[in-house]
Amino acid sequence: MVEQAGSAVELVAPGDRVVIPTHLYCGLCVNCARGLSAACLRVRPGGFGAAYGYAGMGPYRGAQAELLRVPYADANCIPVPGEPGDNLEDALVLLADAFVTGWHATELARVYPGCTAAVFGAGTIGLLSAYSCLLRGADVVYVVDYVPERLAMAARLGAVPVDFLMGDPVDQIRGLRHSHGLPIGEEPMNGVDIVIDAVGFQARDRAAVSQGHPDHENPAQVIGDLARLVNPTGHAGIIGVYAEKDLHPAPAGHADGHLTVPWATFFGKGVSVGFGRTHDRRYTVLLRDMILSSRARPGPIVTHHGRLDDAPALYQVFDQRADGVIKAVLHP
Amino acid sequence: MVEQAGSAVELVAPGDRVVIPTHLYCGLCVNCARGLSAACLRVRPGGFGAAYGYAGMGPYRGAQAELLRVPYADANCIPVPGEPGDNLEDALVLLADAFVTGWHATELARVYPGCTAAVFGAGTIGLLSAYSCLLRGADVVYVVDYVPERLAMAARLGAVPVDFLMGDPVDQIRGLRHSHGLPIGEEPMNGVDIVIDAVGFQARDRAAVSQGHPDHENPAQVIGDLARLVNPTGHAGIIGVYAEKDLHPAPAGHADGHLTVPWATFFGKGVSVGFGRTHDRRYTVLLRDMILSSRARPGPIVTHHGRLDDAPALYQVFDQRADGVIKAVLHP
Amino acid sequence: MVEQAGSAVELVAPGDRVVIPTHLYCGLCVNCARGLSAACLRVRPGGFGAAYGYAGMGPYRGAQAELLRVPYADANCIPVPGEPGDNLEDALVLLADAFVTGWHATELARVYPGCTAAVFGAGTIGLLSAYSCLLRGADVVYVVDYVPERLAMAARLGAVPVDFLMGDPVDQIRGLRHSHGLPIGEEPMNGVDIVIDAVGFQARDRAAVSQGHPDHENPAQVIGDLARLVNPTGHAGIIGVYAEKDLHPAPAGHADGHLTVPWATFFGKGVSVGFGRTHDRRYTVLLRDMILSSRARPGPIVTHHGRLDDAPALYQVFDQRADGVIKAVLHP
Amino acid sequence: MVEQAGSAVELVAPGDRVVIPTHLYCGLCVNCARGLSAACLRVRPGGFGAAYGYAGMGPYRGAQAELLRVPYADANCIPVPGEPGDNLEDALVLLADAFVTGWHATELARVYPGCTAAVFGAGTIGLLSAYSCLLRGADVVYVVDYVPERLAMAARLGAVPVDFLMGDPVDQIRGLRHSHGLPIGEEPMNGVDIVIDAVGFQARDRAAVSQGHPDHENPAQVIGDLARLVNPTGHAGIIGVYAEKDLHPAPAGHADGHLTVPWATFFGKGVSVGFGRTHDRRYTVLLRDMILSSRARPGPIVTHHGRLDDAPALYQVFDQRADGVIKAVLHP
Repeated sequence: MVEQAGSAVELVAPGDRVVIPTHLYCGLCVNCARGLSAACLRVRPGGFGAAYGYAGMGPYRGAQAELLRVPYADANCIPVPGEPGDNLEDALVLLADAFVTGWHATELARVYPGCTAAVFGAGTIGLLSAYSCLLRGADVVYVVDYVPERLAMAARLGAVPVDFLMGDPVDQIRGLRHSHGLPIGEEPMNGVDIVIDAVGFQARDRAAVSQGHPDHENPAQVIGDLARLVNPTGHAGIIGVYAEKDLHPAPAGHADGHLTVPWATFFGKGVSVGFGRTHDRRYTVLLRDMILSSRARPGPIVTHHGRLDDAPALYQVFDQRADGVIKAVLHP
Repeated sequence: MVEQAGSAVELVAPGDRVVIPTHLYCGLCVNCARGLSAACLRVRPGGFGAAYGYAGMGPYRGAQAELLRVPYADANCIPVPGEPGDNLEDALVLLADAFVTGWHATELARVYPGCTAAVFGAGTIGLLSAYSCLLRGADVVYVVDYVPERLAMAARLGAVPVDFLMGDPVDQIRGLRHSHGLPIGEEPMNGVDIVIDAVGFQARDRAAVSQGHPDHENPAQVIGDLARLVNPTGHAGIIGVYAEKDLHPAPAGHADGHLTVPWATFFGKGVSVGFGRTHDRRYTVLLRDMILSSRARPGPIVTHHGRLDDAPALYQVFDQRADGVIKAVLHP
Repeated sequence: MVEQAGSAVELVAPGDRVVIPTHLYCGLCVNCARGLSAACLRVRPGGFGAAYGYAGMGPYRGAQAELLRVPYADANCIPVPGEPGDNLEDALVLLADAFVTGWHATELARVYPGCTAAVFGAGTIGLLSAYSCLLRGADVVYVVDYVPERLAMAARLGAVPVDFLMGDPVDQIRGLRHSHGLPIGEEPMNGVDIVIDAVGFQARDRAAVSQGHPDHENPAQVIGDLARLVNPTGHAGIIGVYAEKDLHPAPAGHADGHLTVPWATFFGKGVSVGFGRTHDRRYTVLLRDMILSSRARPGPIVTHHGRLDDAPALYQVFDQRADGVIKAVLHP
Repeated sequence: MVEQAGSAVELVAPGDRVVIPTHLYCGLCVNCARGLSAACLRVRPGGFGAAYGYAGMGPYRGAQAELLRVPYADANCIPVPGEPGDNLEDALVLLADAFVTGWHATELARVYPGCTAAVFGAGTIGLLSAYSCLLRGADVVYVVDYVPERLAMAARLGAVPVDFLMGDPVDQIRGLRHSHGLPIGEEPMNGVDIVIDAVGFQARDRAAVSQGHPDHENPAQVIGDLARLVNPTGHAGIIGVYAEKDLHPAPAGHADGHLTVPWATFFGKGVSVGFGRTHDRRYTVLLRDMILSSRARPGPIVTHHGRLDDAPALYQVFDQRADGVIKAVLHP
């Protein structure tokens, strides 16, 4: 119940600088009132939850645009100080999606002060999940990926990078735990307390990547890694997307979102698994204030800037993991 | 984070049957968004929180009226089914204030399944605090008062009545714990886990009541009782009102809301004390649904009905604790 | 942090009447100290967690015996009053396993006051899961099974029985929600908030049972039901066993505990799934006290009594779901 | 339920290096089992809780000694690696009392990531309360004292020092909040979310200190400050000691631990107040591991070292707040 949310005392007025969350909500329905705005019951009639530019999540087109229609604007417009182009801009832009999503992953995975954690995937969400773990007092956070710039960014944010091209990431992390001398004599607890999936069903198959085929997907790969690595009594958070309709399923995947997973391992270890999209309503003001006080500094993960016209080219290099691009911000 | 709140999928329309909470709120400010609607930052400009007919809590006059102005109506109108005069009416009317307030007391006092509890004061709030404890799985609940009809109602709701005219209520409850044979051999834990003050600073002095002077007040009396009775590691909830400005303080009271209390006993026992007015936003829909499913049946505490014209007379008998009046409902 | 546990003030002495949990623990290792005794690090050297008579969970043979070796006896012996054969005996025996396990299911599934819940499986654990939901203030609890005596017992405990021989249980429950008129206009929320799997991988295939083949198993059947029925933002608890090694997997099962499940549906709905065996340390004293005060009365689910010599015959009728046997208690 | 505790997998053996908590406990009684070891029911027969060298808390003399008797040693001996005199020694010594107590204050006050906090008192406990707030993700932490070395240490740990000789500390902190530009337009929320009393009843009267009389006490001074500064809906933690028997009460104090406090302000603001001594069982292993991983570095607050023979002289300079002494560690 400690998470914050909501807008300011004054209702928003024309000319105010605001941040708009990607996942829209009404603020007043029974789910929004509980802070569960990803399941808002009004913003997408007949369903629950909506987002800009998201297949199957309502009539709201992508938010990389000059002008934006904002439904339930009193709920969704979060005031921020300053001027366009100031030195907080990159950090504030991340409030619209990646930072709140990364923070939400720490809620799904029940991160607690002093825990050990591992995040699979060092894209924007994975990096900010790891950063959120550290802001919340995690003892140590491992981040698994294979793109050098992403792994370097993970280290810069305070996490321990793990390159899966160097071997099974689960084995690597167990080895690191051992070399850290922790915990003292707790043999079955030599994994980590918290595991976060920031990849989802479009996971690149590790073996295929090693052999130069980064396009091969392995939709349940990360789930298997989580189950092997998590300590008994630990917690998992699934923030990477798993789609209920997959038009082009991988060989090991299903078109209906079913996956073959180590269910009995989760049972045997007695873990919890938290799933789903971020409840922006609970986090935006909280994280805004942490940015404004300089407590949180997510801005550096923005590696590229461009204008709206640059979007197609930036998406292309992003898709190729080229040019060191981690996150690009577009200016209208 | 489990409490519910908010209104329905459809926005409210003219003609809908609704319940309006006594403590109004906007639903969208940073406090409402966290479910802390008693401290709404918009409903009373320059302050926090507002209520109908409450001194110092905004420009909203009493709600016992034919027509009512409802600010932020999309947030405050909670739809309920049925028709005026149906057999759920008494229960639904209690949603506007007494039931949510009694429920809030159990949040302040951190009631948990299997706990032992004592509620001081068997007015409407105290009775519904005790009832809420039981709905939440309390093992046993003692209710302290001296008005026979109130004590009888406490028993009817499933609590154990304790008449303070029969002796020190703390001693009586310790004796009842002992005679119940519980807990097994836990000597220093022979009080109760949870204590709730549903009386406040206008507490009638027990000794004076015994001597036929019910008008003598003892503003810190209940606080002392809580401190003596609560178990080490226990929890206290203060739902009875303590006013920061008291125009007519009791001999042992202060005009500025200061009281002399056993602060070191709270420290020595390591307890928590939760204070304050109810956050209707968190409870109204939750309790509405428990009433509609017949899981919660608070209606029987309504002992009297009348028309608006009957209000002065009903208030008078209520003030005298006469005629068995516990709660009266007025029909416009 | 509210759950209780532990033994009494006085250390246990010869001649004391005690209850011994099925899942043993040391009480002092880092997991026991956190109340996570199912993952005790000392009771099974080289592993975590142990139990009487459980394959792969340590060297402790079954507890249906005249004498029992109790490791870490100061931690595991929970004192109870009374004498052998008294009228609390059936209830107290259930403390050793079924009641704490049923209660644990409500923790896994994050049951909260006022929630709606459905429990799949009306064996002893399922029945006491449903009963625990109600003790904790659940608004309404549906229980799914096909054995008439079990469904009757569910109703007797206060739950709503759902016979899967009458049709898809998920459809039946949605229909019941609708006919109850709840919730008001919340279309996508017309399932239940909480779902509990008290069956596990040895689930009898519903279609096969309907055709008179109760031995056909469908290991992921209940998981699919949970995913369909749970409301967005809801919670699932998996207390039914899923084994990591299955010597005789069902046609749709795997020998290594992998199952094909609707992972994307859990993601899309944003639910949590809690898995695993009960942490007796957190619940035994709590539930003992609720039994002693008559707040909890689980005893009636014991339908049969016998002597140790009767065990083989009782197990046989139990396995056949014959003779109305739900739970049998053996007397040495 | 996330706090850790307990000892290691292996039982402690002669020659092991261990830390012993100041507040002793059995580990197995109903309070220890819930992690509430400050109220252990066995360690002090007839009462609850015990500590080394603490008046009224059992027969255990002070722990600044060459040899120590450790009751319930399997519960109380927490293994630590390394050798006497290594560079972690200062940090590990603080595990025995000051660090766990400072951490406990953050539990009493319900510190959450992103909160704003103020700690009154910059002795060892106050400093480590502030440090614990920051480890847990507090946005900003103010620390109030008047001793220059203590204020400098607060700044070194990452907090904002507030010197009460420069004016009313509550006014100073509100001014700092305003100058930080936060929160945006939330007028009634311009205090802090969390307030911690790390001083207790022997508070030096601010006015008297300003006039050169540091020995004048004002037992309710800090409580008044907390009530004024805390935001509506905020939380207070009372870790400073309030004694139930005060042989030499201050003019405004009572011999029985009663104090005159702004009770109605706590009610009006709807805050919670958590009281009491630390539950070492919940924190020692957690904080040990954070020290071993270098995540937590409390060592620098140890300003002085000495041998046991140096104790009287060190206590004297400590009592005079002279020589820059904040914390001294004695070597047998």
